Amino acid sequence: MKEFIESVITKAANSVSTVWPWFRRKANRIATNRIINKCRHRPHPWSMIHDYVSWSSLSEKKWSARHLPAIQLNPPKRNDLENLFKRAKQRLSSKSTCLFPAFAQYLTDGFIRTRMPDKDEDPSPKRKQNTSTHQLDLSSLYGRTPEQTRVLRLLSETNRQKGRLKSQMINNEEYPPFLYDGQGIKSEFEILDEPLMPEALKEIPAIRLKIFAVGGDRANASPQVAMMNTLFLREHNRMAGVIEEANKVWDDERVFQVSRNITIVLFLKIVIEEYINHISPSFKFIADPSIAWNAPWNKPNWLTTEFSLLYRWHQLIPDDNWWGGKNYSVKETIMNNNLLLKVGLKRGFIDMSDQYAGEICPFNTSPDLLHLEKMAIDQGRLCNLASYSDYRHYVKLKRPRKFSDVSSNNEVVNFLQSAYQSVDDIEFYVGLFAEDLERNSPLSPLLLRMVAVDAFSQALTNPLLSEHVWKEETFTKEGWKLIGETRTLRNILNRNVEEKLDDSDYIGITHKNWKPN
Amino acid sequence: MKEFIESVITKAANSVSTVWPWFRRKANRIATNRIINKCRHRPHPWSMIHDYVSWSSLSEKKWSARHLPAIQLNPPKRNDLENLFKRAKQRLSSKSTCLFPAFAQYLTDGFIRTRMPDKDEDPSPKRKQNTSTHQLDLSSLYGRTPEQTRVLRLLSETNRQKGRLKSQMINNEEYPPFLYDGQGIKSEFEILDEPLMPEALKEIPAIRLKIFAVGGDRANASPQVAMMNTLFLREHNRMAGVIEEANKVWDDERVFQVSRNITIVLFLKIVIEEYINHISPSFKFIADPSIAWNAPWNKPNWLTTEFSLLYRWHQLIPDDNWWGGKNYSVKETIMNNNLLLKVGLKRGFIDMSDQYAGEICPFNTSPDLLHLEKMAIDQGRLCNLASYSDYRHYVKLKRPRKFSDVSSNNEVVNFLQSAYQSVDDIEFYVGLFAEDLERNSPLSPLLLRMVAVDAFSQALTNPLLSEHVWKEETFTKEGWKLIGETRTLRNILNRNVEEKLDDSDYIGITHKNWKPN
Repeated sequence: MKEFIESVITKAANSVSTVWPWFRRKANRIATNRIINKCRHRPHPWSMIHDYVSWSSLSEKKWSARHLPAIQLNPPKRNDLENLFKRAKQRLSSKSTCLFPAFAQYLTDGFIRTRMPDKDEDPSPKRKQNTSTHQLDLSSLYGRTPEQTRVLRLLSETNRQKGRLKSQMINNEEYPPFLYDGQGIKSEFEILDEPLMPEALKEIPAIRLKIFAVGGDRANASPQVAMMNTLFLREHNRMAGVIEEANKVWDDERVFQVSRNITIVLFLKIVIEEYINHISPSFKFIADPSIAWNAPWNKPNWLTTEFSLLYRWHQLIPDDNWWGGKNYSVKETIMNNNLLLKVGLKRGFIDMSDQYAGEICPFNTSPDLLHLEKMAIDQGRLCNLASYSDYRHYVKLKRPRKFSDVSSNNEVVNFLQSAYQSVDDIEFYVGLFAEDLERNSPLSPLLLRMVAVDAFSQALTNPLLSEHVWKEETFTKEGWKLIGETRTLRNILNRNVEEKLDDSDYIGITHKNWKPN
Repeated sequence: MKEFIESVITKAANSVSTVWPWFRRKANRIATNRIINKCRHRPHPWSMIHDYVSWSSLSEKKWSARHLPAIQLNPPKRNDLENLFKRAKQRLSSKSTCLFPAFAQYLTDGFIRTRMPDKDEDPSPKRKQNTSTHQLDLSSLYGRTPEQTRVLRLLSETNRQKGRLKSQMINNEEYPPFLYDGQGIKSEFEILDEPLMPEALKEIPAIRLKIFAVGGDRANASPQVAMMNTLFLREHNRMAGVIEEANKVWDDERVFQVSRNITIVLFLKIVIEEYINHISPSFKFIADPSIAWNAPWNKPNWLTTEFSLLYRWHQLIPDDNWWGGKNYSVKETIMNNNLLLKVGLKRGFIDMSDQYAGEICPFNTSPDLLHLEKMAIDQGRLCNLASYSDYRHYVKLKRPRKFSDVSSNNEVVNFLQSAYQSVDDIEFYVGLFAEDLERNSPLSPLLLRMVAVDAFSQALTNPLLSEHVWKEETFTKEGWKLIGETRTLRNILNRNVEEKLDDSDYIGITHKNWKPN
């Protein structure tokens, strides 16, 4: 009955959006609060520094926070739990395009940022720490620190090109500058975080020489992610031109800062109105900053260790991807910006929107990525995470009583049974990905709930959306209008390609053929 | 009429506190919210880094925030505005004892922390920055960073003396260790912030050798401040003994952390229940953490540049102080811990409670401190602060229309008239201290309002008081009981002196002879 009422409200809210904006906003507020209130509000009492409350656990943000306190679970009966993830035959999503993993990765790499241990180093304690700014601030584009931001900027001293990020033109399209020259990292960029796998890169100069100089050490991880970052780079620089033109007395600094204000908010709008709405089974959310102003859950962000695990959606990556009509295996795409440079931004977005992502489910991780599943399981143990059942209880979902409550797939149930003495022993990471999917969502119920709570409660608390900042003068008239008009990646892309998109060019995180069932 | 009703409610709330605890808590909640809501809630849109909203102004906390945006005031007609402060004949407070400046200084030095420019260095931009942790966290006792905290700890590796801060016994009393030996700063303490005036200290070894090794660079500024810090050091170490005894399996780290949790909360209780209640004209507040849990003003702390100015209460310092029956001039007390060591903690507290502080009013700063008033006025100009009138308007006090609206003292009115073209030109710092005092408060109305807003909104947002942390298990049974029983400095002192206080030993920020009028 409750579900029926909810579905009626949802349908009404979605359908009458143009007729009754007031009702739409009201329903949106209720729906948003309802989701966030499934979880305890911050501040989290615990972090990875201590298993009890301490001033350090409440103030030293380099230690990831935790939703539930440390606990020692009964050990599993088998040692190869990563095999629950191993892909036999690839299963594709019916809802998500390859823009979904691209955007999810771009979003989380700029925010979650678990610290990486050095090679051969004891992974504890670094795996318990993070290098996050704890804000959705486009750090992959702008850098994590003021010093990094500085070297990414053009810092024009003339009266032209004010407020721009450094960029270069290739095939008449704008991209970030390259990070390396023949010798190594260009000296101007030494302060940036080094990209992943610097040793491996040395062996493949054709790839290394096309790595972009950007804010995030993972923004070159795949051409899909580099494509997202390039989109926001272009939008920043385009807006800077508009702002510069409309405010002739402003200096480089002010044009830069105001363009950044706008670009971060555009990013937040995409997070809520395209990304969250994609994972939402039915309700279509709108980004309404005022929901947060007086909300009891509006408390400082603090990245949690659970989030550093639950966002590992390796199954989303299909075995191969086409770029400009040609197929490439996962391995061929890793850090390979050549694919993006070859086809350009418009074709890249069209191609990724035309391909289904993998489905997030058991037995569906590419064998090339299986070692990452083992690392994730190990990290959960290192952090003494509570059980899958405890986390379901924590976000107000039913505890499973038997293995078949976790999954309707016999193969999965049998695997879990062979691995754990009791359903209460199932580990967080294993349970998260063993669950059946929520109907009409690409995520399982536990994943969906935790992702939604954090996305809302950490995006809407952004200070740019706060009560005395969220006004036209923060963004200029031009920026304010643009923010109002932007709801999708397509909107932003269309402003940043030479040849506009036409109706047959579909761009979206949700596949054009998807229908809810 | 409104005032009459308020005074009735206030009297009722104060008097029936033992009869109707429910009513008392309700009235306390209303009164606290009423005060905080006089001001715009955080986040502040601006900081000292830009005169407009930017991601930097919203995220780089080393730049002090600002309540009102930068503005260029009309310049004053005379250059010697510090003479408005110059003391002719000392005026003493009728309400405040010398524990008031001691506690105020200890509180603010651990929190406000404007960055000091090096000698002969251009004071801008450092005077616009701070080294604050932006929390009331007893950083003067524990240090500003984990590395500083570490060197201040005993770090016992045996099964005894767990969780203690380093200390030494002098005349059978416990004090922090000394910072210097004959050569200079002891190597173990090199990571601490160096105390004020290190060059001058070199010339006076008798004083330098008694400087304590503590968390704050100003916790040795006077024996009164060192006395406060010593009190909390003793309380921490005493509690660590209690916790250690009650939790035999806990290690040094846990005993330390839990003792720190307790000690910080005791400090917050004193801030609200003794310090705020001292400046409050009538209403007696209680520290009720739950007020903040769902409050719209519960937003992250961020020290403001206005606060780095408004807490300069130099007039509170009387021309001389007695310690153990002997009088010392201000100059003789500066950084001179010998006075405290000579009389001990109990006598020190009794002596300071028996002497009136100076009154915060014009023409009442010791000539020895007059250069500080000039520095403060200059800093206000450097920061382009809005006018005194704008700040009154900001906190919902009436704007002055004429000079005589500021003060009832003709001498003050004449001075202001000779200094400014118009009453709207009066600078923030000048106006703050030119005002008449609020009845029954040691502060002027503008000072009172701004201090109260910030004290409440920054103390009650402390994460140790937050909804899911504020419970017995965070503090242990013993700590929880102690927190409940502690309301005054006297309570804490009595636990940390060998010979208990008796009824004739008065300890208080408010003078024993004070009566409201």
